[in-house]
Amino acid sequence: MHRYRSHSCAALRKGDVGETVRLSGWAHRIRDHGGLLFIDLRDHYGLTQIVVDPDSPAFKQAETVRGEWVIRVDGVVKARSDETVNAKLPTGEIEIFAQEIEILSASKELPLPVFGEPDYPEDIRLKYRFLDLRRETLHRNIVSRTRIIAEMRNRMSEAGFTEFSTPILTASSPEGARDFLVPSRIHGGKFYALPQAPQIYKQLIMVSGFDRYFQIAPCFRDEDPRADRLPGEFYQLDLEMSFVEQEDVLATMEPVIRQVFETFADGKPVTQQFPRIAYDEAIRKYGSDKPDLRNPIEMQDVSEHFRDSGFKVFANILASGDHNQVWAIPAKTGGSRAFCDRMNSWAQGEGQPGLGYIFWRKEGDAVQGAGPLAKNIGEERTEAVRQQLGLDDGDACFFVAGDPKKFYPFAGAARTRAGEELNLVDRDRFALCWIIDFPFYEWDEDNKKVEFGHNPFSMPQGGMEALESQDPLTIKAYQYDMVCNGFEIASGGIRNHLVETMVKAFGIVGLDRETVEERFGGLYRAFQYGAPPHGGMAAGVDRIVMLLVGAKNLREITMFPMNQQAQDLLMNAPAEASSQQLRELSLRVAVAKKDA
Amino acid sequence: MHRYRSHSCAALRKGDVGETVRLSGWAHRIRDHGGLLFIDLRDHYGLTQIVVDPDSPAFKQAETVRGEWVIRVDGVVKARSDETVNAKLPTGEIEIFAQEIEILSASKELPLPVFGEPDYPEDIRLKYRFLDLRRETLHRNIVSRTRIIAEMRNRMSEAGFTEFSTPILTASSPEGARDFLVPSRIHGGKFYALPQAPQIYKQLIMVSGFDRYFQIAPCFRDEDPRADRLPGEFYQLDLEMSFVEQEDVLATMEPVIRQVFETFADGKPVTQQFPRIAYDEAIRKYGSDKPDLRNPIEMQDVSEHFRDSGFKVFANILASGDHNQVWAIPAKTGGSRAFCDRMNSWAQGEGQPGLGYIFWRKEGDAVQGAGPLAKNIGEERTEAVRQQLGLDDGDACFFVAGDPKKFYPFAGAARTRAGEELNLVDRDRFALCWIIDFPFYEWDEDNKKVEFGHNPFSMPQGGMEALESQDPLTIKAYQYDMVCNGFEIASGGIRNHLVETMVKAFGIVGLDRETVEERFGGLYRAFQYGAPPHGGMAAGVDRIVMLLVGAKNLREITMFPMNQQAQDLLMNAPAEASSQQLRELSLRVAVAKKDA
Repeated sequence: MHRYRSHSCAALRKGDVGETVRLSGWAHRIRDHGGLLFIDLRDHYGLTQIVVDPDSPAFKQAETVRGEWVIRVDGVVKARSDETVNAKLPTGEIEIFAQEIEILSASKELPLPVFGEPDYPEDIRLKYRFLDLRRETLHRNIVSRTRIIAEMRNRMSEAGFTEFSTPILTASSPEGARDFLVPSRIHGGKFYALPQAPQIYKQLIMVSGFDRYFQIAPCFRDEDPRADRLPGEFYQLDLEMSFVEQEDVLATMEPVIRQVFETFADGKPVTQQFPRIAYDEAIRKYGSDKPDLRNPIEMQDVSEHFRDSGFKVFANILASGDHNQVWAIPAKTGGSRAFCDRMNSWAQGEGQPGLGYIFWRKEGDAVQGAGPLAKNIGEERTEAVRQQLGLDDGDACFFVAGDPKKFYPFAGAARTRAGEELNLVDRDRFALCWIIDFPFYEWDEDNKKVEFGHNPFSMPQGGMEALESQDPLTIKAYQYDMVCNGFEIASGGIRNHLVETMVKAFGIVGLDRETVEERFGGLYRAFQYGAPPHGGMAAGVDRIVMLLVGAKNLREITMFPMNQQAQDLLMNAPAEASSQQLRELSLRVAVAKKDA
Repeated sequence: MHRYRSHSCAALRKGDVGETVRLSGWAHRIRDHGGLLFIDLRDHYGLTQIVVDPDSPAFKQAETVRGEWVIRVDGVVKARSDETVNAKLPTGEIEIFAQEIEILSASKELPLPVFGEPDYPEDIRLKYRFLDLRRETLHRNIVSRTRIIAEMRNRMSEAGFTEFSTPILTASSPEGARDFLVPSRIHGGKFYALPQAPQIYKQLIMVSGFDRYFQIAPCFRDEDPRADRLPGEFYQLDLEMSFVEQEDVLATMEPVIRQVFETFADGKPVTQQFPRIAYDEAIRKYGSDKPDLRNPIEMQDVSEHFRDSGFKVFANILASGDHNQVWAIPAKTGGSRAFCDRMNSWAQGEGQPGLGYIFWRKEGDAVQGAGPLAKNIGEERTEAVRQQLGLDDGDACFFVAGDPKKFYPFAGAARTRAGEELNLVDRDRFALCWIIDFPFYEWDEDNKKVEFGHNPFSMPQGGMEALESQDPLTIKAYQYDMVCNGFEIASGGIRNHLVETMVKAFGIVGLDRETVEERFGGLYRAFQYGAPPHGGMAAGVDRIVMLLVGAKNLREITMFPMNQQAQDLLMNAPAEASSQQLRELSLRVAVAKKDA
């Protein structure tokens, strides 16, 4: 027999009754039932119940065993009586009568309970992560994470992609977030940087003549602690394709991501054909470029009903600027004064003057609008609003007025709040969509100049001609996001592979050819030697895993996370370097005094 | 039709004749045959021949195309005439008559030719890596590398392993090579380190209750430039298993590695059952713990034939110390004075006084030993040597005498040289074996003390009892290497998961409990809370790829390598940091003056 086990703790069934077996694992829970000892033995695969009766030669040893000790058990498989069968456990029809127990490794008193996984302070959980990871939920999440990543790899291979690793010790990025630097010993005073993303390398891979690249890529950004990002590293499903247009990337990646979701959705419905929503339309309907489509509310422009109306606040706003509009947030089933007042107070808490509303109720046979705003604009306009929005008895509508460019985030937040408060959001599904046609440029109000909207390396729609002839602020980019349940889960674009178009695009934001060449030398040089048209995207592995396992915190899906202060409490990092290390790296530490 | 292509450049066959197709790719080679232009169009997948005749509307455009320009070609598939069929090319039965050519991206004059891949200086190749990577051999190597890694992943999954990523920003290792450090911005003056290997993390994963871990793991060591290691990062197939003994790891991994080799061996034979050779035996037979088993030479101890013999040099050596021995290196077919003299001169070039030899030739019906050494020991002893080694007419034998602990590396080198010079080595196969039973401790002559032989975290054979009762220098470790064709391709061990045994093992080399706790806190703490018996290994991905593709240099199997001075010439790394970056990191650069 094997030194440690003949079966895993998830393997034995009724058909094994009578067999002599050997199991090893952790003592998950120990119960003393009138002299009889019950030990739930746990390993990576599952649980098996061990019974030790006082006549067993193993009894004396069994009495010494405590929770989380690692033991080997030899015994005989017996069927449980009908009333003790545990239907929830795959091994619940049997138990092992122990004949011999060997203690493979004892445990000191536990600083963190494993069984039952009660709430526990985060710093203890991180310091004793090896105990925390034995807890059922976290263990299951980590296994799900690795399965999701394996599924991504398989789907990408099936779609004809090849995985290439790109360097981790590389050059500082001239744009974007803050780099982690790595001092060079051989070149004293110089530094490598850890990649924020393999963006430049994957484009170089295309210029090098490879066709469909992907990578589960570690990325590094030295950002200040944020609730939705762990300090240090994160992972992207990164990909790039040659000789493609936007439609090719979307058509290739939509089934990959859909299938990954379907495999791990646990039966929840997943969008079959992802709607493609233009950025402008997303802002107008949902007040966000990351709309949660599980929320059925779609906003509408109802400016015409308020222009020159008796509601002077809105009428004046509309009269005072061509860009100004009034948007309606229809809220089915929200038609009570109590709910509308609650929304109004919430809006005030958000720093808004308030949130105008109308709600409808039946007066005899007629549906009538109520509330101060309805009174001000009169019955006819109120009814026109109701008709446009398709609302009815018991429904409400909220209104936001002003310049949509400024008010849309608030309108979007009000839409979200109304949908959630009224339980209109179907939480048990994965609603996916594409957001396309992002603006290539945007107006930087602080510096009073045109700036890139998102990615300066995207291809502007209309190419060189658009750059030469169009108002920059009207140019769209071949750029797209994938959104799920209100979260951006992927982002990509068709790249600008033409040097002259790139120089022109940067020229519009005030950067000349020399600056482009200096900042983006690797890519700028490569594009001069035969670059294929190419594009791709990057999906956030951590975010997708969180959605699929229903975790609220990145630490619930990460094996060895740092804490929010960017410390690894288990391994004690970061730590001081020795003076020899610093000397070798030609560095001196110069910590500014806190009170200086 | 798709904007860029209806087919790849490897897709078209005779069955497609008559079809109108669209291809995109790089102009690999352009030939002008009496007005007719031939363009070999290349993409990631292959080559297709394009023909442009002077009557084609595409001709004018085609005349402007130069090597490595990216073009789109529309045309009709035609069968090649029998005499122009190219059997070496999958598309060699057809060619495309171009009707339209679009230039997607032109190229400046090439700093590095792609077609024909002539030798070129390394710095140019690295600076223009995106051109270098288009060359056939390097392109193929990189594709092989990624396929080998994918195969490793698949085999490991099939063997029940789960891939987990371990942190890249972690703590400095107290042992081993030099770490790359990453300054912390939030904790000024403190540093993370990049992992030299995920050793501690993978052991923690086992203690956390996961069962079979693997990872294609990036590892980082800040070593001085070496021919066989690229500066910066390298990759390991890293794995660990719980509840196993040495035999389990060997039995699990041998088929995985064998299958990976067989899949990519290109028909070359691969060892079916890896011999298990004890360290002591490997040293004695091959003079190396990384023996090339393609070389059939096995050394033997022939001390008895030289003890008290007429060859005083050896007789005196044997008489002067109990440890001293004479080893024979039998060299079949090496029986000429010219060859023996050549070996002798080689040995002198290696700093040895010389290399004694005997060679045998037929004198009448008898096989007789020749050379000064044979004369000195006489006919009888010479014949006894011949009999022991099974040598014959036309064979030779070389002899090394002294303390085997000191001379074995030279003896091993002589064995290698003789095998190669005599063409005894069968180069066209992959000869794999395990080396087991490494010594746990060794004698550190410099410091006159016992030191760990290899890995201090391995389990000593015999456990605590051996540590308490045996001469440390006789204790073996549960530690093993996998060797292929003279290269160590993997290394591993059964770990010491018992805190007290670990403390005892370190005590023998003079480190007390407090030091162990301080240096290996993460693991030391974890082992006190129920650690399963576990073990594993790590295989060198780069070395395996080099063996399988037959590359001599790591840069031939790495997409974006640094040069030997640890510089990335493509991306310009390392580079100076801005003063703002240094300030944020609480660092000052203090480069020592070269002549100070």
